[in-house]
Amino acid sequence: MVSKVKRLLIGRPMKSDELDHEKLSKFKALAVLSSDALSSVAYGTEQILIVLMVAGFSAVWYSIPISVAVLGLLAILILSYRQTIFAYPKGGGAYIVAKENLGVPVGLMAGGSLLVDYILTVAVSASAGTDALTSAFPFLHDYSVAIAITVILILTIINLRGVTEAASFIAIPVYLFVVSIFVLIISGVFKYATGDVHAAIPELGSAVSNISLFLLLKAFSSGCSALTGVEAVSNAIPNFKQPAEKNAAKTLVMMGLILGAMFIGISLLAYWYGVTPDPKVTVVSQISQSVFGRGFLYYAIQGVTALILFLAANTAYSAFPLLSFMLAKDKFMPHMFMVRGDRLGFSNGIIILGVLASVLVAAFHGDTGSLIPLYAVGVFIPFTLSQLGMMIHWYKTKPSAWIQRFVVNTIGMITTLSITLIFIFTKFSHIWMVFIFLPLVMLLFMRIHRHYVNTADQLRIQLDVDKPTIKGSTFLVPVSGITRVVLNSISYARSLSDNVVAVYIGFDEEEIQKMEQKWAEWNPGVRLIVLRSRYRSVVKPLIRFIETVEWKTASTDHITIVIPQFITKHWWQNILHNQSSLLIRTFLVNHKDIVITTVPYHLNK
Amino acid sequence: MVSKVKRLLIGRPMKSDELDHEKLSKFKALAVLSSDALSSVAYGTEQILIVLMVAGFSAVWYSIPISVAVLGLLAILILSYRQTIFAYPKGGGAYIVAKENLGVPVGLMAGGSLLVDYILTVAVSASAGTDALTSAFPFLHDYSVAIAITVILILTIINLRGVTEAASFIAIPVYLFVVSIFVLIISGVFKYATGDVHAAIPELGSAVSNISLFLLLKAFSSGCSALTGVEAVSNAIPNFKQPAEKNAAKTLVMMGLILGAMFIGISLLAYWYGVTPDPKVTVVSQISQSVFGRGFLYYAIQGVTALILFLAANTAYSAFPLLSFMLAKDKFMPHMFMVRGDRLGFSNGIIILGVLASVLVAAFHGDTGSLIPLYAVGVFIPFTLSQLGMMIHWYKTKPSAWIQRFVVNTIGMITTLSITLIFIFTKFSHIWMVFIFLPLVMLLFMRIHRHYVNTADQLRIQLDVDKPTIKGSTFLVPVSGITRVVLNSISYARSLSDNVVAVYIGFDEEEIQKMEQKWAEWNPGVRLIVLRSRYRSVVKPLIRFIETVEWKTASTDHITIVIPQFITKHWWQNILHNQSSLLIRTFLVNHKDIVITTVPYHLNK
Repeated sequence: MVSKVKRLLIGRPMKSDELDHEKLSKFKALAVLSSDALSSVAYGTEQILIVLMVAGFSAVWYSIPISVAVLGLLAILILSYRQTIFAYPKGGGAYIVAKENLGVPVGLMAGGSLLVDYILTVAVSASAGTDALTSAFPFLHDYSVAIAITVILILTIINLRGVTEAASFIAIPVYLFVVSIFVLIISGVFKYATGDVHAAIPELGSAVSNISLFLLLKAFSSGCSALTGVEAVSNAIPNFKQPAEKNAAKTLVMMGLILGAMFIGISLLAYWYGVTPDPKVTVVSQISQSVFGRGFLYYAIQGVTALILFLAANTAYSAFPLLSFMLAKDKFMPHMFMVRGDRLGFSNGIIILGVLASVLVAAFHGDTGSLIPLYAVGVFIPFTLSQLGMMIHWYKTKPSAWIQRFVVNTIGMITTLSITLIFIFTKFSHIWMVFIFLPLVMLLFMRIHRHYVNTADQLRIQLDVDKPTIKGSTFLVPVSGITRVVLNSISYARSLSDNVVAVYIGFDEEEIQKMEQKWAEWNPGVRLIVLRSRYRSVVKPLIRFIETVEWKTASTDHITIVIPQFITKHWWQNILHNQSSLLIRTFLVNHKDIVITTVPYHLNK
Repeated sequence: MVSKVKRLLIGRPMKSDELDHEKLSKFKALAVLSSDALSSVAYGTEQILIVLMVAGFSAVWYSIPISVAVLGLLAILILSYRQTIFAYPKGGGAYIVAKENLGVPVGLMAGGSLLVDYILTVAVSASAGTDALTSAFPFLHDYSVAIAITVILILTIINLRGVTEAASFIAIPVYLFVVSIFVLIISGVFKYATGDVHAAIPELGSAVSNISLFLLLKAFSSGCSALTGVEAVSNAIPNFKQPAEKNAAKTLVMMGLILGAMFIGISLLAYWYGVTPDPKVTVVSQISQSVFGRGFLYYAIQGVTALILFLAANTAYSAFPLLSFMLAKDKFMPHMFMVRGDRLGFSNGIIILGVLASVLVAAFHGDTGSLIPLYAVGVFIPFTLSQLGMMIHWYKTKPSAWIQRFVVNTIGMITTLSITLIFIFTKFSHIWMVFIFLPLVMLLFMRIHRHYVNTADQLRIQLDVDKPTIKGSTFLVPVSGITRVVLNSISYARSLSDNVVAVYIGFDEEEIQKMEQKWAEWNPGVRLIVLRSRYRSVVKPLIRFIETVEWKTASTDHITIVIPQFITKHWWQNILHNQSSLLIRTFLVNHKDIVITTVPYHLNK
């Protein structure tokens, strides 16, 4: 049953060598890896304008130089990450770069904040998309948490079906979004150029009385929210078709160009059309209304925008499992994140991401506003660390033209560091929990690492010295009566050793006498030892007896306890058997160094 | 940790021979077994008056003859159950009596409805007690389900601590209740006798225009709700100190006398003081206000009444586990209901009762009104069946004076049957689910019984024919590398047999070659067989290999698979190991007839 539902949702299992077919072409990679970055166009310009409006409408012209600055930062990031892709062709996310150049703890800091950030990406995108939906259909408002979690569930299932299928599913709305935004920009520019727009707007460079540097920086840092998601490509190089790094680099540049063009286009139109932010109507919506009026094109752009916000979550579904795989390979996360599922995705990572994001959505009641600052810090900390790592990388390896590369990353580092600091100083009350949570995650990574290293130490053997040794054996068979199950177990033990003892735990003298008598009558060639229990416990007298045997045999013998287990025909019948065998087994395996042999007895009706 | 909390709540484990000290004296038994019956005094008279008021105030005098009729029925029930106690000294609840005299299906019908009824008793009492509490403190109203469930939880814990402790805890409020009701009745009668009461009341026997037989019958059946709980004593005979049946009989008669006196006393006072039912003030509260005024005694009576309603649930906590024990002994319920816990109570029955009652309270949102009709039917069906059973018993065994005993039970049977029929016809819309649920429970009992009988058939051996047989043995050791764990498992297998094969499941050729080479270098004296898996599954190739081995060895050999199991030092470390061993074990034990040997490897850091 369960496995049938699984088949239906996830699809048939795939062979390991089908993995290569699962690799992404540039076209699909762009869709899968950039939906997060591209979708930020939907709110980036708006974030800048909201801050500037504090200084009044006359300040909105600053949005143009700020947008250009963001564009510059985007260019730096793209150039820098392009360098990273070629320097780290096996996947050079902030984790790898920071770890290799700045040491393991800094790498874990970068990796930990990225992991948390991916969870936040899913939570934020699902909540924001739901906000868009519930604004259009207010009667859905009471169900917003349920809707967001359903969206997460659907994304989880799509991603469990496999990377390629997810890409095919996602490519259409992503490219639709890109196309419609470009149609909007081109039409808008055309309309403006032909002189059809008559908005009263402050001139570029005109004096604004109450503008401060702090405000401009804050506007800039808010605009930088458009840059989240840029790092996704450099993490995901192993997902690309060969030649992976070249394809990845081209995809990254392509993404940068599209993102930059869309962002500056929207900013320019917003300025030319004199758009001011309105809590009820988004900036993109205002522009598209001015350009097209409330017609088909307007609704199409709104619909596709809502969809892309949902799909932004999908970037995290590619990046989170890959990063957990890398952390698991380095023994900082549980091995289970290295296992590929039926459809060759890292299913445990995908599932954990879905679960944690749903928990976040539920915990924050789907409130996008309180999630976003956390999200931005989570992005810019690893950005900065990655840039710093690349600086060290160039300084250490000194390849040709290393100085100009070093300069690129230095500029990038200083910029991203500044933005991080601006975030911390302007929004500390929202993000303080990062500074508690991040060290905890790092500590957990370290503890896990230590456990794996310790385990490996304990398990290592010297091939030439450590050989199998042959010892004697004592078998104990707990019996509760004389049945076919007991016959079975004793036959098995007797086949392996002459040293077999049956153990009976009796609660009152009458029972015990009857059992001894019947045993003598049966005479199976095995001695029966009776233990008396004054309580109703079976485990405790057995443990005491085992300790006596251990003491007698010292280390010369293996001690094996043979436990019969009923296998009922229907699962519900399990409840009908006392399962004291299960109790004994669980207790002994955890507490004693003895071997436990389970002899199944399959009931056939 | 868990076990410490358990100790704190439940107390230290007790020795089996302490059981006799756990038996109940008459004094404690009366408290434990009659709180349900006695508490009905709190609402019995009121139920009669509510129905009569439909015909107007002039009809209230009928409450006196009806109360006398209920008293008569009580006398019949007490006499009848007293006969049952001596006829069935090992516990003669409706289940036993009906099973022995009317056949197993009828017995199961009686037993099933009693079990359901006990669950309802707990749910109804907890809800009713909570109603009393939230009426007094309206701000608690939003938490009424939580309060009811907390009360159930507390009762469950008290009962897990053991029968005697529960009795000590419960005796005080029960006797307080009895004493305060008698104080009320005596004071009330005295006040009336001294001519201090001047209520205008309809005379006994005065004509009432619109009274109907149906109404009188309905009032009578409502009054019979005061009789629920009377059967508890006859079920619980094994809980009494020796001589159990005499003590039980005396307790039953004592309970009948107290209940009868309190019931008729309250009914008389209600009539004399001209009390009419009021949805906001209970009849008992009105009487006690008239007698004492709103002083200390008034509040004491109200408080003790609320408490007794909570404790009424406790009767079910004695009766349910005992009845499940009997049904389990007869193989109609799972064996686990026969296991005595640390404190010698049938803890599984106690826990299940608590859980199911909580579920009922939650499902009905603590609505007492919709639970009560189900509850009443659940009582009168087994009453009737038990009386019928006793009739057959006397007719078959014909002891001295059997005819008069037969007559007692016949009268009882006809009365209880009538009441059952009145319930069905007047309240069918509330109780129809009983006629769906009861057959389902009976069916479940039958299925369980068949399973146990089948199992016993399959397990039975002939002592003189079936002896242990000695066979050959093949050991398979799945290995995933060369570690101390593998060394351990192979040493163990080699100690028992020369026929040991190591099985390696490889996913790609490079790995496989490396493993084969390393194995040759190690040379542990055991052949390595490599299975190639095109999927990531370990279980499937292993199963295929086992099937090959089975086919080769036919039935001449035991096949044993040796599975190493990491035992980590801290529980959370378990998540760090893939536990594919657990997966293999679970799958194999359920699907294949091969022996599974778990070799524990205890990690010490």
